[in-house]
Amino acid sequence: MPHTKDETYGDHTSHAFNDELMELKAQFLKMGGLVEQQVENAVQALMDSDGHLADETRTRDREVDQMEMDLDEVATLIIARRQPTARDLRLVVSVIKMVADLERVGDEAKKIAKLALQLSEEGQAPRGYIEVRHISNHVLGMLHEALDSFARLDASQALRVKKEDKNVDAEYQAAARTLLTFMMEDTRNISRCMSLMWVLRALERVGDHACNIAENVIFMVEGEDVRHTSLEDMEKLVTQDNS
Amino acid sequence: MPHTKDETYGDHTSHAFNDELMELKAQFLKMGGLVEQQVENAVQALMDSDGHLADETRTRDREVDQMEMDLDEVATLIIARRQPTARDLRLVVSVIKMVADLERVGDEAKKIAKLALQLSEEGQAPRGYIEVRHISNHVLGMLHEALDSFARLDASQALRVKKEDKNVDAEYQAAARTLLTFMMEDTRNISRCMSLMWVLRALERVGDHACNIAENVIFMVEGEDVRHTSLEDMEKLVTQDNS
Repeated sequence: MPHTKDETYGDHTSHAFNDELMELKAQFLKMGGLVEQQVENAVQALMDSDGHLADETRTRDREVDQMEMDLDEVATLIIARRQPTARDLRLVVSVIKMVADLERVGDEAKKIAKLALQLSEEGQAPRGYIEVRHISNHVLGMLHEALDSFARLDASQALRVKKEDKNVDAEYQAAARTLLTFMMEDTRNISRCMSLMWVLRALERVGDHACNIAENVIFMVEGEDVRHTSLEDMEKLVTQDNS
Repeated sequence: MPHTKDETYGDHTSHAFNDELMELKAQFLKMGGLVEQQVENAVQALMDSDGHLADETRTRDREVDQMEMDLDEVATLIIARRQPTARDLRLVVSVIKMVADLERVGDEAKKIAKLALQLSEEGQAPRGYIEVRHISNHVLGMLHEALDSFARLDASQALRVKKEDKNVDAEYQAAARTLLTFMMEDTRNISRCMSLMWVLRALERVGDHACNIAENVIFMVEGEDVRHTSLEDMEKLVTQDNS
């Protein structure tokens, strides 16, 4: 394992404490990897009308839930035993918040899998799938970047995730309008298009959660709460630090 | 002020620490009161096609955001300074999580206010409003009960909130079907009904957040994480404790 700044996180001297923080990070990233896979599988199940994969995705959400509870417990134990302060405390509190985001991404994957099952049973032509695929690629990219920015504690990378959010929103609006047009063309499209509308909305929320994670990374690195800060001010904060 | 068990929360002996925990609770409940008001106003703006009230609701979301940041800071400071353990730590960690739920309820209120503005500009007949009013009353009741169960640290009351969730889901499904019927009857209804569909979804999520708060209350009181526990097992846990 190469030596990174993570291995000497914070200014505490206890090796055991340091190991615990590293383990917390590793466990969080493992959960992140699982929910990425869940979203990917749910969308794939939709595209391929693969009922088996959709079912599997729904079932695996239990693993995500279990990881949420385990991580919360580990984080709370670290607070109780190690009484972290400053940067270490920011890490632990941020993990508690970001775990909730990951669990919700898992829920969105489960919803998409459920809609995939419904749609595969109806068995109609895959209109609107291009839009779904496009947005899913986009938000999965954001989620991956957000998790990576946490792994590296890279505020600039986190800021890039935040910047992508506007593009996803614009794509979502355009896709929703397209679906609305399909619905108006023929009322027989309505039910199916509504299902796809929920899929789009679920994906858009995955993007929102990626942004929440990114905001937490900026907080961890910069020590400033940027959740309700403009992109411009975030940029100043992050570049100032790097210059 | 009457003597309640809250005033002697936990087993710490420091009066100052106790005061800080009470202040944290009070601030959280104040934020809760504000977001309840926000949801109420957003729905009222929709019902009355009141653009002014809708605008005001959107603007006031900034107060909710500020309260979120303030509460997070207070909670983190308590951890850093007081190094709480056991029950006290559960309270502080739960507040950090529940604050995120309240902030999201605020976001849903903002979304409803935005949709109210759109709908008031379109100025068509208020079809589907009965459904919206019905569900909004229901989820506002749940949110109020959840906050009240936190104020009293009453696990039985929190459990009642959890039990209501199924009913809201059923009502939501029925209302969504009604709107779908309107859409199929006349394609000119589609755009308007889609907006109401988003309002219903936002309200359903308010119910979900009320449930999250209720789960945290059960965790604080019982010391057990019940987020992914069946209602039956939750019931056993809570009644066992009361008998």
